[in-house]
Amino acid sequence: MIHEPIDRPIDEPIDAAVAAHVERALADYLAVRHAGMADQAPSFGSAVASLADFVLGGGKRLRPTFAWWGWRGAGGAGTGVEAEAVLRAVSALELIQACALVHDDLMDASAVRRGKPTVHVEFAARHRERGWAGAPERFGAAAAILLGDLALAWADDMFTGAGLPAHRQVAALPPWQAMRAEMLAGQYLDVLTQATGDESGEAALSVARMKTAAYTVERPLHLGAALAGAPEHVVAGLRAFGTDIGVAFQLRDDLLGMFGDTEVTGKPAGDDLREGKRTLLMSAGLRRAVAAGRDADAEAMRAALGDDALDADGVERVRGLLLDVGAVTEVETRMAELTETALTALEAVELADPAGRVLRELAVTATRRTS
Amino acid sequence: MIHEPIDRPIDEPIDAAVAAHVERALADYLAVRHAGMADQAPSFGSAVASLADFVLGGGKRLRPTFAWWGWRGAGGAGTGVEAEAVLRAVSALELIQACALVHDDLMDASAVRRGKPTVHVEFAARHRERGWAGAPERFGAAAAILLGDLALAWADDMFTGAGLPAHRQVAALPPWQAMRAEMLAGQYLDVLTQATGDESGEAALSVARMKTAAYTVERPLHLGAALAGAPEHVVAGLRAFGTDIGVAFQLRDDLLGMFGDTEVTGKPAGDDLREGKRTLLMSAGLRRAVAAGRDADAEAMRAALGDDALDADGVERVRGLLLDVGAVTEVETRMAELTETALTALEAVELADPAGRVLRELAVTATRRTS
Repeated sequence: MIHEPIDRPIDEPIDAAVAAHVERALADYLAVRHAGMADQAPSFGSAVASLADFVLGGGKRLRPTFAWWGWRGAGGAGTGVEAEAVLRAVSALELIQACALVHDDLMDASAVRRGKPTVHVEFAARHRERGWAGAPERFGAAAAILLGDLALAWADDMFTGAGLPAHRQVAALPPWQAMRAEMLAGQYLDVLTQATGDESGEAALSVARMKTAAYTVERPLHLGAALAGAPEHVVAGLRAFGTDIGVAFQLRDDLLGMFGDTEVTGKPAGDDLREGKRTLLMSAGLRRAVAAGRDADAEAMRAALGDDALDADGVERVRGLLLDVGAVTEVETRMAELTETALTALEAVELADPAGRVLRELAVTATRRTS
Repeated sequence: MIHEPIDRPIDEPIDAAVAAHVERALADYLAVRHAGMADQAPSFGSAVASLADFVLGGGKRLRPTFAWWGWRGAGGAGTGVEAEAVLRAVSALELIQACALVHDDLMDASAVRRGKPTVHVEFAARHRERGWAGAPERFGAAAAILLGDLALAWADDMFTGAGLPAHRQVAALPPWQAMRAEMLAGQYLDVLTQATGDESGEAALSVARMKTAAYTVERPLHLGAALAGAPEHVVAGLRAFGTDIGVAFQLRDDLLGMFGDTEVTGKPAGDDLREGKRTLLMSAGLRRAVAAGRDADAEAMRAALGDDALDADGVERVRGLLLDVGAVTEVETRMAELTETALTALEAVELADPAGRVLRELAVTATRRTS
């Protein structure tokens, strides 16, 4: 099923409903591109419809939201033709994110995302149901690779075609370009750290900095501010805020991945552990177990990390250890400190109303969320 | 190893050495992006160096060459600041192609490309040599996915950052955007046709139209002509030429994939067959065998198609059958006809010198090549 363009206007202004406006912009864009493809190559059109469902089927729209408030904080208009163009441009961040998620799920062999089968699993199932030739998994992988690529290409198309004045688009290119490269660098470091088994806090921190802080918060804010032509010190202040909040955000993610409610997160708890992700949480747990002379507990954690057959009891045991050695408290404390330094950085920047207040709220909710 | 920017100027003008100028533009661009990455994330920098080696390590630079001659034929300058910007913009096509090849090799599980290990194989070997944790194949796949994504993102960055005047860049967006989507549609149709086992000539032709004709010849010509602000009838003429030459090009590829010299093509002969690719050549072979009442021969061909354990004798047997039922002659004839109609379309368009002559030569060599 492909979503129709949303005809009825959204009653609230963008400021009051950023996510709803982003979703409308995405639905409109995808409907047009899908129609073009469905004409040219109907069987690819049906694959594109799955991608559109994925993009429109959920997500917190965090990246466009941060970008929007970067724009507003640096003095960009909240309504009018330029504001609409900026809204479309920052909505394109969700297409980069679609690529990142579809490819990440394939690389991690994750079966579930947002409570639904992941794209490679969905296409493998389609292959199996129809009794096609070859291995279903291979077909699923190919579909996920190609649809992720398409999302990445369309992100650029949507950004370039947003209708921005030329000078704004040029000003936005440095953060736009840096962000995509940093996202991919972060993903690679994540995979590499799992492979090398580097359990240091530094390794986990550099993944968190690239993959989450830069890509999710810092660069979106930078992008919005650059679109508004913000002076260097405003950009620097927003980026400092974004880096710390981004790392705090990742710490919350680590905790949710381990202790979160599957019903709420849409992902099975313990998956990070089974996949062998070297999170800051696990790194703190291992360090503290070793420092306390609890070598057997450290070994038990190491053995669980990357054990894809680990059952619920095994996950529960690691949870207990992480609590017991104080890793959870350490991460909670670190998250509070980062939120604090982030808010201090934010206060030092003069932002147009109501961006300062909204960013403060986003910072607090993003680190306290349950999904 | 990362290639240094090429300092010495190329003696010949662009017209006389398009591929060399494209390679210099790519080397310069990749050196700058690699340096930025190597600073920020050294271990990703070393992966990026592998991508740069891949991009700079070979290829016929066909897509930028067609785009360049589209530009020149539509009256674009051969030297000067704008010509240099156009050269950089069309060189970005090689980065799209790098994404297509790296991802395609992964999807097809191909081990060799241009006589060297494919990217996923290279990274799996790196993982194995260092004794890292997890499955080497999974690490190799992740690296190939992420480096392909990076090439696709950088293609857009290189195109957008080429220094084109704004009106030229805007004029070029429709073919630029269509081309990337068509490339991915073509890849998907290719994979889908292998899965469904559709052995019709129509299915093979629509893959060839999207994957090769549109993406390799028609859209690059369109892109170059659009950059030069060509009128509609010139664009239409170039595209008609490009579609026919592109399909002819794919037919030559089919023949080389089956009968080519591995030493020259850099790919093992028979790989298309083992992968189960539904080429126009195989489709003609099956159709002719059935029409001649040679059901056992048709069955033998079907059995070989997609048999990844097929040995050299098995490939040889299919070769013999394709010759024997007249499929090779049919494909050669079709190639000659397409070249003819393409050249007729080309002659009907008035192009600036020397583009008409060069395109005619490219058409002939592209369909007669041995690698």
